[in-house]
Amino acid sequence: MGKTIGAVLFEGFELLDMFGPLEMFGMLEDAPDIRMIAATAEPVASRQGPKTVIDAIFAERLDYDLLLVPGGPGTRPGVEDAGLIEWLGQAADASTLVATVCTGSALLAKTGRLDGLAATSNKAAFGWVMEQGPKVDWKAEARWVEDGKFMTSSGVSAGMDMALAAIQRLYGEAEAERIATRTEYDWKRDPAWDPFAAIHGLV
Amino acid sequence: MGKTIGAVLFEGFELLDMFGPLEMFGMLEDAPDIRMIAATAEPVASRQGPKTVIDAIFAERLDYDLLLVPGGPGTRPGVEDAGLIEWLGQAADASTLVATVCTGSALLAKTGRLDGLAATSNKAAFGWVMEQGPKVDWKAEARWVEDGKFMTSSGVSAGMDMALAAIQRLYGEAEAERIATRTEYDWKRDPAWDPFAAIHGLV
Repeated sequence: MGKTIGAVLFEGFELLDMFGPLEMFGMLEDAPDIRMIAATAEPVASRQGPKTVIDAIFAERLDYDLLLVPGGPGTRPGVEDAGLIEWLGQAADASTLVATVCTGSALLAKTGRLDGLAATSNKAAFGWVMEQGPKVDWKAEARWVEDGKFMTSSGVSAGMDMALAAIQRLYGEAEAERIATRTEYDWKRDPAWDPFAAIHGLV
Repeated sequence: MGKTIGAVLFEGFELLDMFGPLEMFGMLEDAPDIRMIAATAEPVASRQGPKTVIDAIFAERLDYDLLLVPGGPGTRPGVEDAGLIEWLGQAADASTLVATVCTGSALLAKTGRLDGLAATSNKAAFGWVMEQGPKVDWKAEARWVEDGKFMTSSGVSAGMDMALAAIQRLYGEAEAERIATRTEYDWKRDPAWDPFAAIHGLV
């Protein structure tokens, strides 16, 4: 039976942060149950405009096989949203694997669950993200970082590489390879691949 | 004032076919008005599960600055849906630029508007796609193909490269470069880059 993915939505989420990884997970032979979750039941608008239908509200459940947290401009008000941060911390504790894309790591850092752990985030807003978790061991040059049950990726597109790495971890390399080929994606298998850190003067 | 994008939805559309390109277009400095359009007003479910809210039904408007057509398993019943194909042909005639991703090119081919023109599609279903447009000059090895106002891309991820090529065409290379960097995307600028044609034995 497929795993259950809780995909966290908030106003101003970044489209590709969310739907890049869900494309990859959704192609698993052992198809997951993807639940789009938010604080309330109303559809949620992305930064770019398109709105997604909500399958379940936060209060319904905390424990997912994989909790997926996107970034986007909505993370700026998000780190000040005490209800969101408290729920996210509890859901992170209850879930088996927690994966963030882009500035989604700022939300997770704000819960304190990344304290003392290695993590990364997008490179255009790295200074702001670091301020949300001063005790996190932030890695500026990384496509994604894995530390225990937490996986954090660099900006936007990096979420797809992290998703394939998660698939490799959970289902093996052949399945990740099959999905990368099926989606005609140039999978970056090396978590150290990150030309964008230098572009933004972080290394 | 930003351009108006009509993004065509049908049950079983492929998530990344749609939201990869919309991520790129949505990051334009001159932000577009993205309209999610479908035959009826009900939210539309993707192959992977997540449902998108509809902004306008097909009957409301035909002429878009850019008409975006995704692929996905929904194109299999789609090519037999006379209402969809007739509308798509009229909208393609009325729109300035028409871009398809993956098997979205099968839908456009079925309208006859690609007859005599060069086009491509995804590599895992290339034979089936060619059958939908026997008079199309199908190119098996191509990340994307441009012929007049039509842009057709290879499978799933290729839509992002096609979108950046469209942005380069409409707004210049610097803007496409800025968006690729902002989304930390390894932009394939060369339409001939296509390792997947060989993987599927097409070359």
